[in-house]
Amino acid sequence: MSSGISHKVLNLDNINPHIRAAKYAVRGELAVKSEQYRAKLAKGEGKDLPFDTVIAANIGNPQQLDQKPITFFRQVASLLENPGLLEHENVLTDSLGYKSDVIARAKKLLKDVKSVGAYSQSQGAPGIRQSVAEYIERRDGYPASFENIYLSNGASSGVNTLLHTICAKPETGIMVPIPQYPLYTATLSILDARVVPYYLNEEQAWGTSLDSITTAYDKAIAEGTDVKAICVINPGNPTGASLPAHDIKAVLKFAAEKGVVVIADEVYQTNVFIGEFISFKKALRDLQKSEPGKYDHIELASLHSTSKGMVGECGHRGGYFELIGFEPEVAQEVYKFISIQLCPPVIGQCIVEMMVNPPKEGEPSYELYKKEYDTIFAGLKERAYALYEAFKRMEGVKCDKPQGSMYLFPTITLPPKAIEQAKKEGREPDEFYCFRMLDATGVCVVAGSGFGQKEGTLHFRTTFLAPGTEWTNRLVKFHEQFMAEFK
Amino acid sequence: MSSGISHKVLNLDNINPHIRAAKYAVRGELAVKSEQYRAKLAKGEGKDLPFDTVIAANIGNPQQLDQKPITFFRQVASLLENPGLLEHENVLTDSLGYKSDVIARAKKLLKDVKSVGAYSQSQGAPGIRQSVAEYIERRDGYPASFENIYLSNGASSGVNTLLHTICAKPETGIMVPIPQYPLYTATLSILDARVVPYYLNEEQAWGTSLDSITTAYDKAIAEGTDVKAICVINPGNPTGASLPAHDIKAVLKFAAEKGVVVIADEVYQTNVFIGEFISFKKALRDLQKSEPGKYDHIELASLHSTSKGMVGECGHRGGYFELIGFEPEVAQEVYKFISIQLCPPVIGQCIVEMMVNPPKEGEPSYELYKKEYDTIFAGLKERAYALYEAFKRMEGVKCDKPQGSMYLFPTITLPPKAIEQAKKEGREPDEFYCFRMLDATGVCVVAGSGFGQKEGTLHFRTTFLAPGTEWTNRLVKFHEQFMAEFK
Repeated sequence: MSSGISHKVLNLDNINPHIRAAKYAVRGELAVKSEQYRAKLAKGEGKDLPFDTVIAANIGNPQQLDQKPITFFRQVASLLENPGLLEHENVLTDSLGYKSDVIARAKKLLKDVKSVGAYSQSQGAPGIRQSVAEYIERRDGYPASFENIYLSNGASSGVNTLLHTICAKPETGIMVPIPQYPLYTATLSILDARVVPYYLNEEQAWGTSLDSITTAYDKAIAEGTDVKAICVINPGNPTGASLPAHDIKAVLKFAAEKGVVVIADEVYQTNVFIGEFISFKKALRDLQKSEPGKYDHIELASLHSTSKGMVGECGHRGGYFELIGFEPEVAQEVYKFISIQLCPPVIGQCIVEMMVNPPKEGEPSYELYKKEYDTIFAGLKERAYALYEAFKRMEGVKCDKPQGSMYLFPTITLPPKAIEQAKKEGREPDEFYCFRMLDATGVCVVAGSGFGQKEGTLHFRTTFLAPGTEWTNRLVKFHEQFMAEFK
Repeated sequence: MSSGISHKVLNLDNINPHIRAAKYAVRGELAVKSEQYRAKLAKGEGKDLPFDTVIAANIGNPQQLDQKPITFFRQVASLLENPGLLEHENVLTDSLGYKSDVIARAKKLLKDVKSVGAYSQSQGAPGIRQSVAEYIERRDGYPASFENIYLSNGASSGVNTLLHTICAKPETGIMVPIPQYPLYTATLSILDARVVPYYLNEEQAWGTSLDSITTAYDKAIAEGTDVKAICVINPGNPTGASLPAHDIKAVLKFAAEKGVVVIADEVYQTNVFIGEFISFKKALRDLQKSEPGKYDHIELASLHSTSKGMVGECGHRGGYFELIGFEPEVAQEVYKFISIQLCPPVIGQCIVEMMVNPPKEGEPSYELYKKEYDTIFAGLKERAYALYEAFKRMEGVKCDKPQGSMYLFPTITLPPKAIEQAKKEGREPDEFYCFRMLDATGVCVVAGSGFGQKEGTLHFRTTFLAPGTEWTNRLVKFHEQFMAEFK
């Protein structure tokens, strides 16, 4: 040893095995390859490629795909970044189109945070959390307290906090819908805790079934798993499905009976085409009101984000969760955990405030806000349906009417020859299909295996965010050629 | 069980025990109490308090204490938030004081990120990472590649990523300086890994001693610890001490010989009053050049942040780390880990770009930039020395001349009666002293026990960020009264 060790300290076999085990396909190999194509095209070296643009349909990232931000939000944000502009109100209003409510909001938020360059309280600025509480009250018709609101670095960070808090040992199990957004399984890998999958019902528009849940729960208990929580993504990702009231109630009753925490990921609550969004908080309060004393002990954590909806401010990393029914001593440990990373990004906290407290009817910026909001919604719906129609023209591809979120999750049926070829290449069949799709069309989606799916079924998830509908024709053409090759 | 469980699922005994074990005093009980005082005063209910302002001297948060942001940074940021303003260049330049380089920089950054509301690549926008690489090259005189740069949600998130990657099992040990910024010990608690403390040399202005390091290492090895990394905070937090070249070299040689990764937390690299900052990267390359072949295998991770220096943009959560000498397969696992949380806040990434690539001499915004930079530096130095002088007037308080960072870390010697009283109240003696300080003066600091200290020694850490020097007199008066009470 005296001449020194000349090999590296770290290698695949000795770093954290839980990170090794974790999988996150949304930004996996396929996405990396699509970025390589994009870089190639940007350098003008893409003449050999059969496409001239890369379409990132793998990730819910609206503003990377030309969705414009909400004007009010960004006008306010510009004043938060440069409060010196507030000394030139006339210029702002007369020459730059800033209305008086923009200026008022910036002043209010600067009182809340002092500076977007200062750390806030770890839980987030109290004034902003108060706005969130008021939003929740308006939405649900039940009280909410700013003390139970935790602003977070996107909802992803909130999920990370909750799972870190709840997962106490390797036997801890968290129920996760299949298919799910793989933040859950990846984080549980890293925590060396157990995923308890419950299957969503593909035959019933990806509905949540109590049977499925209780089957999964019983199986896990029999295996010695200490099941501590059930995650519900509502509206669903990747499915878009919104749970009807009776299904939410069933989940809550299940949680009360078995003693599990409910984690309600509600980031797509304003992305609903079919059905309606009912918050778990409202359903819980309704249930508690209708059967007093019986369900008062339920612990619920509900998450929201500025990344989705019509807001689409992914890069700002704004989000929050509300803790309902948690013991104060447990909330204190949550507080301690989040305080180690100091606080969520402050400008992102401000975007949260504006998301939950947008211009109201009668206010100067309302008209434009409403127009932008409705235009974005209409555009999302139009593109969702264009994709849906395209899928109808693709042999063996089955897709429900777009229900919500930012995704479609069609089922694909591949010929045996294709499945064989996939195996030869060491890939899951839907992965193989998606790689071929990327190579032929420049469109990057995510294979269903990345989200979990019932054995023997194949899917892929695509967003409907990319502008226009031309690119859907690329998919139709590719699929024809693929089927011709492998039939 | 059929009538349902009526107690809570989660309690202190069944949540993640590693979070229970973690301690982070910077935002602990004392800080919480100071916030309660602040709220009381804000509501006008503080007539019974012996102070009329709360001074948050517990946390390096300059802009919460009236430090103004750098104008150039915030002008650019306002354009990034509202790119529509770029359609009114004349108004910006003629009426709002935006110079042409502000506009040019905003355009460059918008090309890099497309929108601050869009997720970037998980590692951060390539163009911004390129600016960071160029900064490192200019600073050190050695090449750097954007591929080895990882933008992060503050440097804290980078530390979290690195420790998560390296800590593979409970026996993994990470060497940590005592005293240290408690992010390290708190994160290692959460990871259920071992802290291997090495003591900084208080008698020699908190210098880093190889003896101390090797003693700590040998002890850990004997205890069966798998020591994988050594953390060095340079300049130090809480100590402010800058490592001279020969000490950095000694650490690198130690790391090479024993086979440990070096984690260099360099967030205070521009906060230096005594000595000079030498980056670990430069020292490593110098060493590799002077003794070719012998030290090529060293793995080094260097961290920086927009929260400190003269930039002070804590709330923006901007930071980065550079990985030097890591195996590609390990870097890929780091990439996967960070991709689960998608990307660092994009406006924060842009602040990083401006920190490493500020206005240059000859450019229109340079004069103001330089003036602001120098004024902030002079203010920090003045307040540091005012505190230092105040400590000289406090019996039993010993403090070195301010060396750097944003903190002073004086030693305190308390009379036996005070130590008894602390024991009666169930507190560490320095904690007890700090609580009394808060109650008497409204000044919130952090007890030395929060950072680690040699057995039998007592300290506290205070920032020198609060404006003015009046509040230092509160401390002198309090200390007099404290000593009178307990002598």
